This record gives sequence, structure tokens and C-alpha cells, in this order.
Amino acid sequence: MIVDVSKRILIVGLGLLGGSYARVLKRFGFHISAITLSQSDIDYAIRENLIDDGSTEPDEKLIGEADLVIFALYPHIFVEWIETNQKLLKSGALITDVTGVKRSIVYQIQEMLRPDVEFIAAHPMAGREVSGVENSTDKMFIGANYIVTPTDQNTPDAIQTCMELGRLLGFSNVTTLSPEEHDEMIGFLSQLTHCIAITLMTCNDKENMEKFTGDSFRDLTRIARINDLMWSELFVANKDVLLEQMNLFISKFNELKTMLETEDIDGMRELMRHSTARRALFDKK
Amino acid sequence: MIVDVSKRILIVGLGLLGGSYARVLKRFGFHISAITLSQSDIDYAIRENLIDDGSTEPDEKLIGEADLVIFALYPHIFVEWIETNQKLLKSGALITDVTGVKRSIVYQIQEMLRPDVEFIAAHPMAGREVSGVENSTDKMFIGANYIVTPTDQNTPDAIQTCMELGRLLGFSNVTTLSPEEHDEMIGFLSQLTHCIAITLMTCNDKENMEKFTGDSFRDLTRIARINDLMWSELFVANKDVLLEQMNLFISKFNELKTMLETEDIDGMRELMRHSTARRALFDKK
Repeated sequence: MIVDVSKRILIVGLGLLGGSYARVLKRFGFHISAITLSQSDIDYAIRENLIDDGSTEPDEKLIGEADLVIFALYPHIFVEWIETNQKLLKSGALITDVTGVKRSIVYQIQEMLRPDVEFIAAHPMAGREVSGVENSTDKMFIGANYIVTPTDQNTPDAIQTCMELGRLLGFSNVTTLSPEEHDEMIGFLSQLTHCIAITLMTCNDKENMEKFTGDSFRDLTRIARINDLMWSELFVANKDVLLEQMNLFISKFNELKTMLETEDIDGMRELMRHSTARRALFDKK
Repeated sequence: MIVDVSKRILIVGLGLLGGSYARVLKRFGFHISAITLSQSDIDYAIRENLIDDGSTEPDEKLIGEADLVIFALYPHIFVEWIETNQKLLKSGALITDVTGVKRSIVYQIQEMLRPDVEFIAAHPMAGREVSGVENSTDKMFIGANYIVTPTDQNTPDAIQTCMELGRLLGFSNVTTLSPEEHDEMIGFLSQLTHCIAITLMTCNDKENMEKFTGDSFRDLTRIARINDLMWSELFVANKDVLLEQMNLFISKFNELKTMLETEDIDGMRELMRHSTARRALFDKK
């Protein structure tokens, strides 16, 4: 479906991600509409040729004509939107999302959704430390991962279409995971990582440290600049997995602390060699 | 003294840092000698015009003619070298170092050193994830901090000379701290940061994670590729401070974990806003 540029795309939530989707997809010639909170964001997006039209309201015509609807909303707002407005969706429409957690969203939406509309979930693993449509960019997805998380409710066609969307957007790596696999992976690679950065940034408020900061500390705290509304919701939505990952981290950190207390040089060196070897796997290919 | 390019500089330990010092200082016209373990490193450095001459032995002539001796050795090897070879130093020579911890080194060396030689300690806060003279570069110090750690044994002249060396090397920020202030700062900004990266890299060995890794995880683990011999020694040499910093981190991390367990959204959001505000201080100016 998606390769047919006569199809109409609606983006709900025109922020950094929604705006970046629009910016890339518009270039292919799709008709792009947007529904978002702020009229100034719509004005900006029309002026910059990211979208063709838009509304701050759940406009019947925009929703009813869309063949593909992309939701770039906070998880609980996405659920509320579907509850309230799914009656306006076109029969046969495909909907997808950008939500950073999957188990708590995918089954709930699929459960409540009209049978003539299909929801295929996806997580574009890309972001910046800034937000808003004016910071959207068509370069954000290069080198990044796009993960489709189908369930047994999804059709092969919808899965293929969603993967094709990821490739059109420019993602370098388009794959599928179950919602459970996705949440475990994201709990470790993204959520635990953010918990660590926040903690490092707030555990020692001694003054003037910034004068001596080098690249190591800056690298570990880049993501400590964080959208508190979104991330607190994402943490709670993946609470069980994230707590498990936090416990794994604490346990290993305490091992290292004990090695230092007992001056177990051999133990520390072995841990560092393990760390060095494992890090090599994660180099950019 | 240092601005007088007729003075002779000896670098002991021609690795990444020693080699980078040589690379920059040679451009100013100083006569640069090196003493290092491997003849092939000396051959490389002469061929690349980093040094004028060198030896794999504590050569009497090279040591006896040097006005400034820069030690780029592991801490315990630096101490052993002084014990064994200080008799060969020129009367009036100034010696400095690059050691990443200060309390455990500075007082010990100053205590044992001949009264006609002065040791002024410094820490160039720069590094790469690779080692060896062949990876040395004259760009490593741009944007970085150079910290001189004088004690009451040091003369104003030596402190000035050492700060001038830092500026000649190209460091953007040349300051002084006491050895105690230095070790507290480095315990937090550098050593704790490395402990976290090592732990994150080794706490979850689940396979195939690298396929989904994004920039966040890569940033937090860049320094998890670590020289185990050097860093285990540096950790132990700053054990009391580092343990204190590790405890601060664990305590704050457990606070966050409790907030997640109790779904204390307000608490998490407040912590994230604190983190976001504090991170802004640490942006590159």
C-alpha cells in the first residue's frame, strides 16, 4: 500500500518525531495531513511544506480520508484518542505509532479497535535532546533502528507495509520483535541507560564541577536532559522490566565496589577486559 | 623557563600521552628526548620527527642533560623510576607528570626527591580509546583541561612553568587544584563515570543486543573499552574517594528505583527536571 503515493497519510501529534516523519514522507509525494494541539505548529508545517493541511481538532474529513494514520503521541493520550475518535477512521485504514513501550499499548489498542481497522505497532529508535516540529529533520533516522512489533492480530500485509514505511523514512535497520522482546530490549538499552544518566547527573551537586568536565562525563550525561513528562510515563509503562534491569545493574555495580574495597586488582582487571571485549560488539558497523 | 626553546625536554614513557606531548612540543623547536620500553616506539618517533633521540635504558646522558622531564608512566612505575634513577637527574631540573591521581603520588615523590630537583604535578585530562605512540596526536588537548596540583613544596616559578607547558600543549583550560581537590573531582567526573560504563557493559550479557543499540547506549559505554592495567591501579590509588562517589551514586539510583516501584510520577519528574537543569551547566561552552 504505502508505495502508492496516491494514498493519504495523517499524522496525529506533530512534534519532533511526527514532524520528521512528515518532512521525509512529503518528499515522496504523499498527501500529508496533521492533527496536533497547536495552530502555530500547523502553520509552520504548511509553510515549510511538511504537510498539505492540518487541524487542531479531530477533524472528521482529515481522519475519514486517511489511508494510513501515524500516531506520535504520549502513550496514554494515544489510548484516549482511539477511544474517543476511532469511529471517525476510514474503514480499511491502517494505523501505526511511534510509542517507546509496546506491551502496555499494543494489546490494549488492538483489543479496543474496530475490526475493520488494523493497528500495527512500531518503534522508531531515534530522538534528539530537543523537541517540537521546528526541530524536526529528515536526517534523524539515518543509521537508526526501526522496530515493528506485530502480534497474532496482525496481517502479513500490514507488517510488510509498516516495514516498508520504516525503510521509506530512511531507517538503516528495519526489523521485527514481539512486544515482549521489544520491551526487554528497550528496558536495558534505553530506559536503564536514561536512569543511569539521570542518577549520575543528580547524585553529586558539588559546585564548579562543570569547569573540569571532559568528554567522558559529557557522553554519559547527554541524555540526562530529558522530557520528564514522557519518560516518567514510559518508565512506569515498562516498570517490571526496568526494575529487573536496574537490579542487574546494581548487583554488578556492587560487585565492582566490593572488588575495590578489597583491592581485588585481578577481579577488576577481568571485569574491565570483559567490558572491553563486549563493547567491541557494539561499535557502529 | 619553558618558553626558552634552547632547553632540553625528556619524556619518560612514550605512549599515547607522551607521544602527543612530543608531537606538539617538537613543533616549537625544543630538543626532545625520550626514554621508553620499546625500541620500535623510539624508531617510530624519530622517523615521524616527534623526538630527536631516545633510549630504552635510563641513559645517563639523556637524563643528565634534561632541563624538564615529563613522566608519562603508570603511577607505581613512576615512583620506582624516581627511586632508582633520580641520582641521574640534572641539578635544577624540573620534573612533571601526567598521572590521573594525585594525593598518592605527589607527596610520595616530593618526599623522596633530591632537594635540588623540583616536582610539580599536573594532570592533562585528555585521552583516547586507543593507546601507543602511533596513535598520538597534536589535536587531543584542544578543548581539554590541564590541571596543575601544587603543594606547599612548590615554587611559584615551577607552578608558572607547568601552567605555561599546559598552554603550549594546546589545552583550552589551565587551572590549579590541590591534590585533594583534584582527586575528589576526578573521582566523580572520571572514575565513577568509568565504573558506571564498565558496569552497564557487563551487567546484561543477553545476545544480539548490539543489533538494536542506538546512540544513547553507545555514548554511555564508549569508555567501557578500558585499559585494565592502568585503571585498576588508578581506582585503588583513589579508593576512599571513589568508594564515596560510588555510594552517592547507588543511593540516588535506589531513590529512583523506589520512585519507580511506587509509581511516584511526581518524584521522578522532579528528579528529571533537576537532571535536565543541571546538565545544561555542563554543555560545552
